[in-house]
Amino acid sequence: MMVRLIEYDEATAEVRAVYDDIMRTRGTDWINNFWKALANDPPTLRRTWESIKEVMAPGALDPLTKELIYLAVSASNGCAYCIASHGAAAKKAGMTAEMLGELMAIVGMANETNSLANGYRVPVDERFEKLF
Amino acid sequence: MMVRLIEYDEATAEVRAVYDDIMRTRGTDWINNFWKALANDPPTLRRTWESIKEVMAPGALDPLTKELIYLAVSASNGCAYCIASHGAAAKKAGMTAEMLGELMAIVGMANETNSLANGYRVPVDERFEKLF
Amino acid sequence: MMVRLIEYDEATAEVRAVYDDIMRTRGTDWINNFWKALANDPPTLRRTWESIKEVMAPGALDPLTKELIYLAVSASNGCAYCIASHGAAAKKAGMTAEMLGELMAIVGMANETNSLANGYRVPVDERFEKLF
Amino acid sequence: MMVRLIEYDEATAEVRAVYDDIMRTRGTDWINNFWKALANDPPTLRRTWESIKEVMAPGALDPLTKELIYLAVSASNGCAYCIASHGAAAKKAGMTAEMLGELMAIVGMANETNSLANGYRVPVDERFEKLF
Amino acid sequence: MMVRLIEYDEATAEVRAVYDDIMRTRGTDWINNFWKALANDPPTLRRTWESIKEVMAPGALDPLTKELIYLAVSASNGCAYCIASHGAAAKKAGMTAEMLGELMAIVGMANETNSLANGYRVPVDERFEKLF
Amino acid sequence: MMVRLIEYDEATAEVRAVYDDIMRTRGTDWINNFWKALANDPPTLRRTWESIKEVMAPGALDPLTKELIYLAVSASNGCAYCIASHGAAAKKAGMTAEMLGELMAIVGMANETNSLANGYRVPVDERFEKLF
Repeated sequence: MMVRLIEYDEATAEVRAVYDDIMRTRGTDWINNFWKALANDPPTLRRTWESIKEVMAPGALDPLTKELIYLAVSASNGCAYCIASHGAAAKKAGMTAEMLGELMAIVGMANETNSLANGYRVPVDERFEKLF
Repeated sequence: MMVRLIEYDEATAEVRAVYDDIMRTRGTDWINNFWKALANDPPTLRRTWESIKEVMAPGALDPLTKELIYLAVSASNGCAYCIASHGAAAKKAGMTAEMLGELMAIVGMANETNSLANGYRVPVDERFEKLF
Repeated sequence: MMVRLIEYDEATAEVRAVYDDIMRTRGTDWINNFWKALANDPPTLRRTWESIKEVMAPGALDPLTKELIYLAVSASNGCAYCIASHGAAAKKAGMTAEMLGELMAIVGMANETNSLANGYRVPVDERFEKLF
Repeated sequence: MMVRLIEYDEATAEVRAVYDDIMRTRGTDWINNFWKALANDPPTLRRTWESIKEVMAPGALDPLTKELIYLAVSASNGCAYCIASHGAAAKKAGMTAEMLGELMAIVGMANETNSLANGYRVPVDERFEKLF
Repeated sequence: MMVRLIEYDEATAEVRAVYDDIMRTRGTDWINNFWKALANDPPTLRRTWESIKEVMAPGALDPLTKELIYLAVSASNGCAYCIASHGAAAKKAGMTAEMLGELMAIVGMANETNSLANGYRVPVDERFEKLF
Repeated sequence: MMVRLIEYDEATAEVRAVYDDIMRTRGTDWINNFWKALANDPPTLRRTWESIKEVMAPGALDPLTKELIYLAVSASNGCAYCIASHGAAAKKAGMTAEMLGELMAIVGMANETNSLANGYRVPVDERFEKLF
C-alpha cells in the first residue's frame, strides 16, 4: 500500500458521509479497502463513488449484466483487487459459477483475437463502419 | 496490413471449408477481413474459428450478453478492428444505442478504478477471497 | 523472483562500479532490488542505469515533475514495484500527499477517457494535428 | 467511428448546456470530437466533463504539470486521440517542444523499466512500503 | 484465487482425461495450478489445452524459440503466473540464464520504443507496408 | 504526428552522425520515420539508437530470434508502427511467412492464457519459483 486505509472511526465528516451512502446503497455494514484508500483524497472518493453509483444503476442494461461487464474488463486488465471486489458484486447480483466460466472464456478469446487483429493490422471492413 | 487478405476464390479447400462454416453459422454471405487475414495460416484460422464458435454459443449466458462482454473487452483494449466487428455482432444480437452508451460508461469506469486500485496497491479484502 | 538478487559483496567489479555510481548519484548507501535483479545481466544493468540517469537529470522539466510523470505512467501500467520505488523517489523530490492524490485522480481520469476515446474510435480533430 | 458526432445545432438543451460550459471554461468557441461522441450518451457526457473539470482545476499541482501527467499516461496507453487533444492542451498550458521531448523520454523509460520489473518479478523493498 | 483448484483425485473423468494428456505430452507426473483452475470450466480446460498443444508443437519455429516468444509476451504483459510457468518451460527447452537476460532486454526495449512510436504517433513508412 | 519528421538535409551534425551510423550498421541508404521523429529530441535519438544497437547485436540469441521476440512483443502491444518496422527487420533476418503465422498464433495464445491466469488469480506453483 502507498497510503493508509482510513477507517470509519478516524474519518472526517465528509468521508463518513460517503461511507454511509456506500453502505446504505449496497445494503451492507462495512466498507471495502478501495474506498478506505481513496479516502486519503476526499474529492476523488466522493466523485468516484457518485460516478460508480450512477453508472451501475439499472438502465438499458440490468445490474447483473453491468457487473459482468465490469468484471470482464477488470479480468482483462489483470487488476487483482477489482477482479476480487467485482467478482463478489457480480455473484451478489446473480452470477453463477457457470456464468463466471463462460465470462472468463470470452475474456480469454477477446484478448487472443484482439492481439491477432492488431498484430496483423487488419483493416476495418466498410460494412462495419458507423454502428449507430 | 502485414499479409494479403485471402479471398474465397483463391482460397484452398481447407480454408473454404472454414469460410463456409462461418457463413452458415452466422447466416451471412460474406467473410470479414479478420478471417481473410488469418487464412494465411490455415491452422490458426480453423482453431480460432472453432474456439469462437464454441465460446460464443448460448450457454449459461445468452448471446447478447456474450457479445456485450466481448465488445467491452475489445473497447478496453483499444482494438479498433474488434470494436467494429463485435459492435456489429452485438447490434445484430440486440444491442441498442442506449445499451452501447451504458456499456462504454462501464468500460470507462472500470479502467479508471482499475488504475486507481493498482496505483494505490490496495490489498484485497479478506471477505473477497474465494468466490466459488 | 525469476533470478537471484545480486548483493554488493558477491558482485563483480563491473557490477560494483554501477552500484557505486547509483549510490553516489542518489546520495544513498543502499541498492534497491531492481538493480540487484538487473545485475544478472550486467550490460542491461549498466545501460538501464546510464539511461535513467540521463533521462531523469534536470532539464526543461524539473526533477519533481519528472518523478511525477514516471510515477503516473507506472501507476497506469500497474507495475507494483515501480509505483513503490518511484513513489519514494517522488516523495524525496518533494511530492506531498496532496500531490499524490491529485496525480492518482489524473491517472484514473486519463485511463477512463483513453478507453472512451479508443472505444468510440473518435477521429482526431484537424486542429489537433501537428503540435510542434 | 461507432457513433455519429453530435453537432451543437442538433444537440438537445441538456447537451448544449455541457457544450456551453466546456467552451466557457476553456475560453474557446468550438467543441472537439471527443465530447461530440460522448453526447450520444448525455449522462456520460455530463459526468465526464464535470469530473475532468474538477480533476484538472489548479490544486496542489499546477495546470501545466497536470496536463503533462495526462499526456504522459495517454502516450503510454497509445491513445492517439488523447495524445493529440492533451498534447494541444499541454502546449496551451505552457509545454515547450523541449518539455515534450523530455516527457516522451520518461514515458519510454518508464515503460521499459516497468516491463523489466514485472518481467523479473522483482519484490518490493521493505523501505519502499507505506509512502504516506 | 477466485475458484478452487481441482485436484486429480476429485476431478471428473472428462477433466482427468485432459490432465492425463498434459502429463503424457510433457513427460511429467504433476499438473500445475493453471490447469487446476481452468478445470472449473471443463470446456475451457479442454479447448485451451488442445490449442496450446497445437500451437507449441514444433513447426517452422523450433520449441525453444516458441517458448522464448511465449515468455517474452508474458513478461511484457506482466502476467506473474505465466512468466513463472513459461520461464520454467523455456528453461526445460534449453533457455540459459544468458538467453533470459537478452530476452528481457529486448522486452524492455520493445516496450520503450512501442510507447515512443505510439506517443509520437509516427506514420508507417511506405516501404514497410505489405510484408508477405 | 505530434512533431515534424527531421530529414537528413535539415538535420544538425549531431543528428546526422546518428543517421549515418544507423545506415552503416543496417547496410541501407535511408532512415525510417521512427528515427526522424526522435530526432526532435537528439539525446533520445542517440540513446535509443545506441541501446537498440547493443541489445539487438548477436549474443546468446541469434539476430533472427531477437527480431522475432521484438516483433511478438510489438504485436502483443498493438503498436502498428513497430509491427511494420520490426516485421520488415525480421523478414530481412530470415523470417518466413510460415514463421510469422506461428509467431502470431503464439502471441494470440499468450494473450489468451495471460488474461485467464490473471483473471482467475492463479497462484504461482512452488516448483516454478526461482528459475536461475
